[in-house]
Amino acid sequence: MAKSLVFGHKNPDTDTICSAIAYATLKQKIGEDVEAVRLGAVGPETQFALDTFGVEAPREVKTVANEVETVILVDHNERQQSAEDIADVRVTEVIDHHRIANFETADPVYYRAEPVGCTATILNKIFKEKGVEIDKATAGLMLSAIISDSLLFKSPTCTQEDVDAAKELAAIAGVDAEEYGLEMLKAGASLSGKSARDLITIDAKEFSMGSYKVEVAQVNTVDVNDVFALRKDIEKEIAINLEENGLDLFVFVATDILSNDSTILALGAQAKAVETAFEVKLTDDMAILKGVVSRKKQIVPNLTAALS
Amino acid sequence: MAKSLVFGHKNPDTDTICSAIAYATLKQKIGEDVEAVRLGAVGPETQFALDTFGVEAPREVKTVANEVETVILVDHNERQQSAEDIADVRVTEVIDHHRIANFETADPVYYRAEPVGCTATILNKIFKEKGVEIDKATAGLMLSAIISDSLLFKSPTCTQEDVDAAKELAAIAGVDAEEYGLEMLKAGASLSGKSARDLITIDAKEFSMGSYKVEVAQVNTVDVNDVFALRKDIEKEIAINLEENGLDLFVFVATDILSNDSTILALGAQAKAVETAFEVKLTDDMAILKGVVSRKKQIVPNLTAALS
Repeated sequence: MAKSLVFGHKNPDTDTICSAIAYATLKQKIGEDVEAVRLGAVGPETQFALDTFGVEAPREVKTVANEVETVILVDHNERQQSAEDIADVRVTEVIDHHRIANFETADPVYYRAEPVGCTATILNKIFKEKGVEIDKATAGLMLSAIISDSLLFKSPTCTQEDVDAAKELAAIAGVDAEEYGLEMLKAGASLSGKSARDLITIDAKEFSMGSYKVEVAQVNTVDVNDVFALRKDIEKEIAINLEENGLDLFVFVATDILSNDSTILALGAQAKAVETAFEVKLTDDMAILKGVVSRKKQIVPNLTAALS
Repeated sequence: MAKSLVFGHKNPDTDTICSAIAYATLKQKIGEDVEAVRLGAVGPETQFALDTFGVEAPREVKTVANEVETVILVDHNERQQSAEDIADVRVTEVIDHHRIANFETADPVYYRAEPVGCTATILNKIFKEKGVEIDKATAGLMLSAIISDSLLFKSPTCTQEDVDAAKELAAIAGVDAEEYGLEMLKAGASLSGKSARDLITIDAKEFSMGSYKVEVAQVNTVDVNDVFALRKDIEKEIAINLEENGLDLFVFVATDILSNDSTILALGAQAKAVETAFEVKLTDDMAILKGVVSRKKQIVPNLTAALS
């Protein structure tokens, strides 16, 4: 069988990087020629996880069709979140936990999506189903992915299956999930040295909602004021982004990982949709969304409904 | 949890009907309120399977949003093959073995597709994963689905997993797969009393290929001449269908289940695409496709490539 690449979405987060590594490891153990790669820079939270468990970051690629004919996607399926030339390769497998949209194949495919909090939780099942043992480092990375996506089990996206998988993986990895998890999240929430441009691109995803193009960027922080100290510059960068990418709406979300509330800044022609979506009033283009931490479960569905 | 309906595609075949029943049975056994329904008439092959194992056909429905808020799809995902009002309900699960296209959700979903020959083969795994025993009648229906989709293990879509699942299910059902299978296929291949309109609608599916709308209808037979004795009427019915549904191409496929060849009749503005797709010459709008039995694996991918 020819070589395949496995990767997560652009602006890779901890689940995307760690699940790509874990699934490539599983595939290699059952004799398949698969390499994990990534579509962007490794963030500080992910780097903390990689360093803790002594694993190298996957190689960064811009395109994939120049290397392989087939690819495996983890932690995403929408083509605008994937490799630039995704249309030029055949997707043979998808392991994901997001909605399905802008995804189409010509042939039957292995597609495994479950409405759980993290791709790594599904991978934990697949390791068992295939009878492949999870090594200590891989378990550590998979645990990191679950902690990251679930904000240490506090996000509404977190299911009992995620909690159970994390418990199993923490035991294999030999760490205390709560203690290690808080350290890892703090490493990721450190925004020191970040420019306004960094803040709106670190974890940004573009969505089609109704007939509109919407980008939702999120940062985790322990102090929202720190983030919005750069508000003027953030607004400038968003304006450039709206223009360059032909967006109808840009929502910048700063999530306080201690209080589990988010402060949003909404700009673009469809900014008012935010008011309908979250039943809030924008003041000076901003609003506080109480108890909202999840882009996938709380922000995207509400915005999609408001714009459709 | 509110009630959910589970159903396969329009123009239901044996896999669609039997997998809907089997998955509803599994769900009921784990305490969920799920009812299997169908989107069209039960064909003679499926009726033979239902009669053999003493199971009632599911209730027929035209629409679903008038009954439930959520649905589960088996054996299909493309919206044009689903309930007319599929956009008005939330799809919570899909169990399928086809390509993914024209499918989109607002929320994360449980999606299980594998490139195997039959939905029932995937269900056989899910029963095991959930630790639910398969009763004799359900095993018989699942076996029937595999025999039907794999043309008694002769289709190129048939994988080792399908063969293995069929063996397990035949043992539970207490039948000889080869002997029972041939009887069932013959029951389905009997076209006596069928009108031209019946022939082009019994097992017809519509596809988007590139920017074209294409319908591929297939019948199984033990004598292709029997089928094309009605050629004049078949052509009239196809002409009506092309017009009414704004199709660019209609391919009618008569598959000989003994020789495993297919004879096709191609009509519509894009009929010539068939020549590129299968490297054949149409003579009087017809061609013989040697060794072609599978719409999914042999006909649709080739036509899609030729039209894209």
